[in-house]
Amino acid sequence: MDNSERTEIADLGEFGLIDRLTQNIQLKNAGSRKGVGDDAAVVSCENGLLTLVTTDLLLEGIHFDLTYVPLMHLGYKAAVVNISDIYAMNGTPKQITVSLGISKRFSVEDLENFYTGLETACNEYGVDIIGGDTSASLTGLAISITCLGEAAEDKIVYRNGAKEADLICVSGDLGGAYMGLQLLEREKRIFAGETGSFTPDFTGREYLLERQLKPRARRDVIERLAGNDILPTAMIDISDGLSSELLHICKQSMVGCRVYEEHIPIDYQTAVMAEEFNMNLVTAALNGGEDYELLFTVPLSMHEKVSTLKEVKIIGYITNSSLGTHLIARDGTEHRLKAQGWNSL
Amino acid sequence: MDNSERTEIADLGEFGLIDRLTQNIQLKNAGSRKGVGDDAAVVSCENGLLTLVTTDLLLEGIHFDLTYVPLMHLGYKAAVVNISDIYAMNGTPKQITVSLGISKRFSVEDLENFYTGLETACNEYGVDIIGGDTSASLTGLAISITCLGEAAEDKIVYRNGAKEADLICVSGDLGGAYMGLQLLEREKRIFAGETGSFTPDFTGREYLLERQLKPRARRDVIERLAGNDILPTAMIDISDGLSSELLHICKQSMVGCRVYEEHIPIDYQTAVMAEEFNMNLVTAALNGGEDYELLFTVPLSMHEKVSTLKEVKIIGYITNSSLGTHLIARDGTEHRLKAQGWNSL
Repeated sequence: MDNSERTEIADLGEFGLIDRLTQNIQLKNAGSRKGVGDDAAVVSCENGLLTLVTTDLLLEGIHFDLTYVPLMHLGYKAAVVNISDIYAMNGTPKQITVSLGISKRFSVEDLENFYTGLETACNEYGVDIIGGDTSASLTGLAISITCLGEAAEDKIVYRNGAKEADLICVSGDLGGAYMGLQLLEREKRIFAGETGSFTPDFTGREYLLERQLKPRARRDVIERLAGNDILPTAMIDISDGLSSELLHICKQSMVGCRVYEEHIPIDYQTAVMAEEFNMNLVTAALNGGEDYELLFTVPLSMHEKVSTLKEVKIIGYITNSSLGTHLIARDGTEHRLKAQGWNSL
Repeated sequence: MDNSERTEIADLGEFGLIDRLTQNIQLKNAGSRKGVGDDAAVVSCENGLLTLVTTDLLLEGIHFDLTYVPLMHLGYKAAVVNISDIYAMNGTPKQITVSLGISKRFSVEDLENFYTGLETACNEYGVDIIGGDTSASLTGLAISITCLGEAAEDKIVYRNGAKEADLICVSGDLGGAYMGLQLLEREKRIFAGETGSFTPDFTGREYLLERQLKPRARRDVIERLAGNDILPTAMIDISDGLSSELLHICKQSMVGCRVYEEHIPIDYQTAVMAEEFNMNLVTAALNGGEDYELLFTVPLSMHEKVSTLKEVKIIGYITNSSLGTHLIARDGTEHRLKAQGWNSL
C-alpha cells in the first residue's frame, strides 16, 4: 500500500467514499438501467418486468453483537434488511443469496439457527433463498446477502424524483430500534458487572426489543399505496436514520425540505425510554436508524388520500433547494438537518 | 449458543454443511428455476433469456494475504472468480455488485487501487458494476461480490448432466496457480528472515505468478465451444481443484469417472517448480485449486470435434456410478479420487 498520497476514509465519509470509488464507472449494457446510487440496482429482463438487485454486508462487532443478539434473530434481520431495500424501490422481493464467513466457535446448530431465522423471514415475504457461499473466517461472523426483486418499469420509485411542494411522509414510528439497542447495551453492561445469576427485566419494553431484534419490512405500506393509486415521487427505507435518508432524497432530487418535530411519529415506549436514559428523543428519532420504515414523497394533490392511510404520517414538505434542509422544532426555531445529529439541539 | 447438541463443522465439511443448511429450502416462485447447488442460480426473466446469479465472499487471512497480493490484483481476481462462475454455466456475465468491509488501516487510495483492478476485469469481460455496500470492519478486509449473467434456457449447462461414456475435458493447464502461491509464500518467509534489503527473484516464474495473481475466466473456451456447436452435458469451473470439481459433477450426475494422469495438462513452469519444492506434481494439479479453468463433459460422438479445440484436453471419461471415481496413474494403478489428496500417492 503506497502512502505517498493518503486520504483518510474518515475525511470522505461513507457516501463520499462511494462517490469517489464509483465516479468512473460507466454502464455498458443496455440492460443495466440503474447502477450504483439507489436502494437497489435495476436490470432489464428483456420484455416485461425489471429485476432489482440489492446487497448488504453485515460484520460482527460492527453491525451486530452476538452477546445479546440470538443467531435466529440475526438471520431474520439480515434477510429483512435486504427485503426492505426492494420495497423501498416499490418492487417485490423474490430471491436472496446468502454468504457466510464463520469462525470455529460456531457449531452446525448455531448456523442452523441462523438459517431458521433467515427462512422464517423469507417465508413471510415470499422470497426464495437461491444460492450463496460459505467459508471460514479468522475472526468474527461475516454475512453477505444479495436480494433480487421485480418491478414494472413505470412503478419503480427512485430517490431522485421529489419535487417542490411534494409532501414528505413516513411509515410507522421512529427511534424505537435505537432505544431497543440502548436497552440491550445497558443490560449487557449490568450483566458484565454481576457475578451471580441475573435475569434482565424487559417487561413493558417488548416493543423496543422487537424493533431492534425483529424489524419488519413495510410490504403492507407498499400494498396500501398501490391499493390507493398513490405512486410516490421518491422513496427510501430508513436504515441510517431519518435525517440521513432525507438528505439522500434532497441531494439526489436537488431540492430542499422542511420537516416538523411535532409530526415525527414516536411510540410511547420510545419516549419513556429516552427519558429514562436522559437522551434527546428527537435526536434518537432523527438519527437512531435501523427502523426500516419507509420515507417517501407524494405530490401535494395526494394530500387527502395519503392523510387517511393507516400507519403513514405527513411530516413536512419539499422546498426549492435554495431554502436548504431544515427541521422546525416545537418552539418554531429552525435547525439544519445533518446526517449525524443536528445543530444546537 | 446452545451446545446441548453440538456437531463440529469440520465433521461435515464445507459441502456437507451447505447440504445440511439448505436441505429444507423449497423454491416458491416459478421464476426461481435453479437455487442452491450449482455455480450460479437461475432466475427467469419472463420471456427471453434467464438471469444467472452467483456470489463469493473473500476474507483476508483466509482467501488472500495482503503481504504479497497487491490490492489491484485482488480487485481483478475478485471479479474474475465470479465471472468464471457465470461462464461455467455457459452464460454471459453482465453485472456485479461489490460489498467491502474495511478497517482503518486502508486509505482511500488503497481502495481505489482495488477498484481499478475490479474495473479492469469488468471492462475486459463486458461487465457492469451496478451496486454494493461499504462498511467498517473491526479486523481484516472482507469482500463480497455477486455477479449476474444471462443465458438462453436451452444453453445453460448444469453440473448434473454428465452421462455414461461422455468424455471429460479440461481447458488450459492445472496446478499453476497453486505453485504461484507456494512461490509467494516462500518469498514471504525468506523476506521475513532478512534484515537488509531483499528483492524477490521471480524470473522465469512469471507464468505461475500470473496464474495466482491475475487468473483469467475462460470466455474464449465458451465461445469456441459455441462456435463449434458443442454443448457440454455438464460443466464447472476449477476453483477448489480438479478432484473436488470432478466429484461434484459425478455426485450430481450420479455417475463415476476414470481420468488419466498422463492426460492432465500441466505447464512446464509448474513441473519445474514442483520439483524444486519437492512436491508431488499430480497432487498439485488435482488439488491445487484457483486455476479457474473449465471442466466439462461432452457426448462421445463429439470426440473428433472436441479433440481439435485449442487449449482443451480430453482427460478421461464418465462411467457407471458403480465403478466409482478413479485416477489411473502412469504405471496403470488405480487411485480413488478424493476432494483433498488421493490415496497412496
